[in-house]
Amino acid sequence: MHPFVAEFIGTLLLILFGNGVVANVVLAKTNGQNAGWIVITAGWGVAVFIGAFCSQEFSGAHINPAVTLAMWLAGELGSASAAGYVAAQFAGAMVGAALVYLFYREHFRVTDDADAKLGCFSTAPAIPNPWQAFFCEALGTFALILPIFLMTAPSLVANGQPSESDPVLGLGALGVLPVGLLVFGIGLSLGGTTGYAINPARDLGPRLMHALLPIPGKRDSNWAYAWVPVLGPFAGAALAVLAHQFMAI
Amino acid sequence: MHPFVAEFIGTLLLILFGNGVVANVVLAKTNGQNAGWIVITAGWGVAVFIGAFCSQEFSGAHINPAVTLAMWLAGELGSASAAGYVAAQFAGAMVGAALVYLFYREHFRVTDDADAKLGCFSTAPAIPNPWQAFFCEALGTFALILPIFLMTAPSLVANGQPSESDPVLGLGALGVLPVGLLVFGIGLSLGGTTGYAINPARDLGPRLMHALLPIPGKRDSNWAYAWVPVLGPFAGAALAVLAHQFMAI
Amino acid sequence: MHPFVAEFIGTLLLILFGNGVVANVVLAKTNGQNAGWIVITAGWGVAVFIGAFCSQEFSGAHINPAVTLAMWLAGELGSASAAGYVAAQFAGAMVGAALVYLFYREHFRVTDDADAKLGCFSTAPAIPNPWQAFFCEALGTFALILPIFLMTAPSLVANGQPSESDPVLGLGALGVLPVGLLVFGIGLSLGGTTGYAINPARDLGPRLMHALLPIPGKRDSNWAYAWVPVLGPFAGAALAVLAHQFMAI
Amino acid sequence: MHPFVAEFIGTLLLILFGNGVVANVVLAKTNGQNAGWIVITAGWGVAVFIGAFCSQEFSGAHINPAVTLAMWLAGELGSASAAGYVAAQFAGAMVGAALVYLFYREHFRVTDDADAKLGCFSTAPAIPNPWQAFFCEALGTFALILPIFLMTAPSLVANGQPSESDPVLGLGALGVLPVGLLVFGIGLSLGGTTGYAINPARDLGPRLMHALLPIPGKRDSNWAYAWVPVLGPFAGAALAVLAHQFMAI
Repeated sequence: MHPFVAEFIGTLLLILFGNGVVANVVLAKTNGQNAGWIVITAGWGVAVFIGAFCSQEFSGAHINPAVTLAMWLAGELGSASAAGYVAAQFAGAMVGAALVYLFYREHFRVTDDADAKLGCFSTAPAIPNPWQAFFCEALGTFALILPIFLMTAPSLVANGQPSESDPVLGLGALGVLPVGLLVFGIGLSLGGTTGYAINPARDLGPRLMHALLPIPGKRDSNWAYAWVPVLGPFAGAALAVLAHQFMAI
Repeated sequence: MHPFVAEFIGTLLLILFGNGVVANVVLAKTNGQNAGWIVITAGWGVAVFIGAFCSQEFSGAHINPAVTLAMWLAGELGSASAAGYVAAQFAGAMVGAALVYLFYREHFRVTDDADAKLGCFSTAPAIPNPWQAFFCEALGTFALILPIFLMTAPSLVANGQPSESDPVLGLGALGVLPVGLLVFGIGLSLGGTTGYAINPARDLGPRLMHALLPIPGKRDSNWAYAWVPVLGPFAGAALAVLAHQFMAI
Repeated sequence: MHPFVAEFIGTLLLILFGNGVVANVVLAKTNGQNAGWIVITAGWGVAVFIGAFCSQEFSGAHINPAVTLAMWLAGELGSASAAGYVAAQFAGAMVGAALVYLFYREHFRVTDDADAKLGCFSTAPAIPNPWQAFFCEALGTFALILPIFLMTAPSLVANGQPSESDPVLGLGALGVLPVGLLVFGIGLSLGGTTGYAINPARDLGPRLMHALLPIPGKRDSNWAYAWVPVLGPFAGAALAVLAHQFMAI
Repeated sequence: MHPFVAEFIGTLLLILFGNGVVANVVLAKTNGQNAGWIVITAGWGVAVFIGAFCSQEFSGAHINPAVTLAMWLAGELGSASAAGYVAAQFAGAMVGAALVYLFYREHFRVTDDADAKLGCFSTAPAIPNPWQAFFCEALGTFALILPIFLMTAPSLVANGQPSESDPVLGLGALGVLPVGLLVFGIGLSLGGTTGYAINPARDLGPRLMHALLPIPGKRDSNWAYAWVPVLGPFAGAALAVLAHQFMAI
């Protein structure tokens, strides 16, 4: 499979499962209504795990423009590849968000809370303060990228086909379980303020779909906040690359 | 062990654990009463894990006619084998459902809610709308089968004895953990609308037992809905095979 | 380490963690008070995982007389060894129960509910009916032992030193994770009726300690029920060995 | 990376994730407010997993002065190394606690409960009784260190570079998952009384930061209790080394 296709599929699955669990918890009359933070965070952790194991063999499982930026800054990925990865990630996130809407359509119809409907697409800060939210998204993404660089299984994030001598290849899908657990942990511990976008495609792609789709009773798409979960993760990723190179001295 | 016996045992255990956790949560006076969506979804995830590791060495751990259909469409399984697999899966699901009833018999007796009793056997949509439910079951099953095909551990679903060179064989039961986590994720994220049958044997087999067993205070078995969790999963499986072959071009 | 010492330590840790999580959830003024069934079942799952990885290299990680009976019936263990294993398991369970009492002593003091105090030691049926409870304990233990026999990692339960060619040895402690997940699943799905003793030492050893320890405001130790979580698990284990041998034909 | 740097980073991440989950659950207006004990304990389990896999290759992943004391007593680590490890752990814990404060700053501002704010830094007993709390911290740490010694993957805690023949090295980050699960279990089962510091750096470092940082509406830092989560874990670690050597006879 072409790496761009893999990034498209991986990010589509990430958003289908990740935004899907939010819809299950916040919309009306679902089986998982008000099922709590453990369900949200476990759902996103498994979403990353699934998106990653479906794409790891073909693209290195970035499924996040902040990861691609970090790999590009670290010299692991050329500029053309990086641009293609990011475009595929945004496209996958948009299709994934549309599928979540189609899947939970009946429940969007019976839900009154317009903020909850937007929450099924993109994130919002619990206490509005844009620069504090920027700091939270940057630190959350730093806490994603640095551990990925420090894992003793570097192929998880390398570009293209993994090297044949990689010891974790024998683990199959289990080899990316640590990344899923890492995002589970970011949700549990650092998800309390901004809802942990930590991925520009995860937030901006679905926000666009929220604006485009004919969702009954929807509010505006909160564009004033849209820069935070894009620039915050990019800043955190760049910082993580710097920190990692500083440590390697 | 003969593959058909393995499929019978694996599906029996799947339903014993899967329908068991539903009974524990929805029936009266159990230790797990109203324990929430995290318990339901974790229970089904572990149910798949157990059913799969018990049968993987002998049959490739389908334990789901939709998986068998996908393998047959992909040319991994002959028609006679596929038919035997599916028959064994339905038989296992029926015996598993009967065991859940016998296990929770005292609690069926003290439960008033007839819908809850039916819910210990088969699924129902949260908001009735058959074609929307069909779409949800098809998409949920698509999100099961495509990741299974994209796993880098193909023996998990291959027919009969796995190849000796399979790198994940050294993992023992852990090798099928990703499939359990995948179903955990489907429950968390895509279980909110129809209760994620995503397996014709899991729904139709127990529904038959609900009709046959002398359950005190039971309602009808909701046969009008029975086609949805059978045809939806088959449609999703067929689509996943198509999508996978399209990707492999 | 001598296998008997390993069984003593493994069972002690099993009960320290397993009965510990019950105490945390049911006693007054703890951090985990009323934390729900997911906490109880996750705690017991991890308890089994810890008890098993601490003893697996030395004794094969039975930590349960029902497992030892099954191994003895299957000819994997001599009679003298089996007797030593079981004695060590009961001794470990008793010391573990005493440690839980000492650990939560202040909370036993401020708890009024005498049934809850007994529940920190041994199990009780949610709806009293001894033969139904016997059936539940037998089926729960059957669902423990048969999957252990069907795992593709046989050293987990073999007696004494595991064979050097065992593929899962390279997994270290992870090799017994499936057993922990299996018990997590038994709790989620089959723990709703009798509280899943599924281990004679786990129930009878702590019940003895409940009778012996000077617990303030304790009730009687419910000896009338004590035979059920001893004989039920033994019956289920014997049945599982029979079923496994029948399948192997 | 120098082992001291690895211990600094590993402990920083441990506290960022560990104290972060407490802040998410106990502070006002967070997404995880009152999300329950399962969230707290899962968060700390993942925190240990992340801190450990980031440092394992470079320092052996102690990230806890009690583990370093145990390794030093067992002769696995020289005195100068041990002192450097402990200093790095305290420094990492202090920086991690400061980051949690900066991350949740808006929520510290809107929270009235001064005990909850202190709880985001250091532990406190549910029922005050210092010697009982000392016993709980010692036993909890004993239940951490002894299983680590009994794991069949000794490199997890060995000093400096792991040996090349270690079978679990091929597992990458997964190799330390059992340690994360172990701490998850300690939280579930033994976290009910004192909040399971089981790590002197985890408690004293953040307590110092609580005293130093300009937190609005903070209470005193409860210095009277500060010795318990320092000396209790050291006592438990020493006891675990003794017990392990006694078993090895």
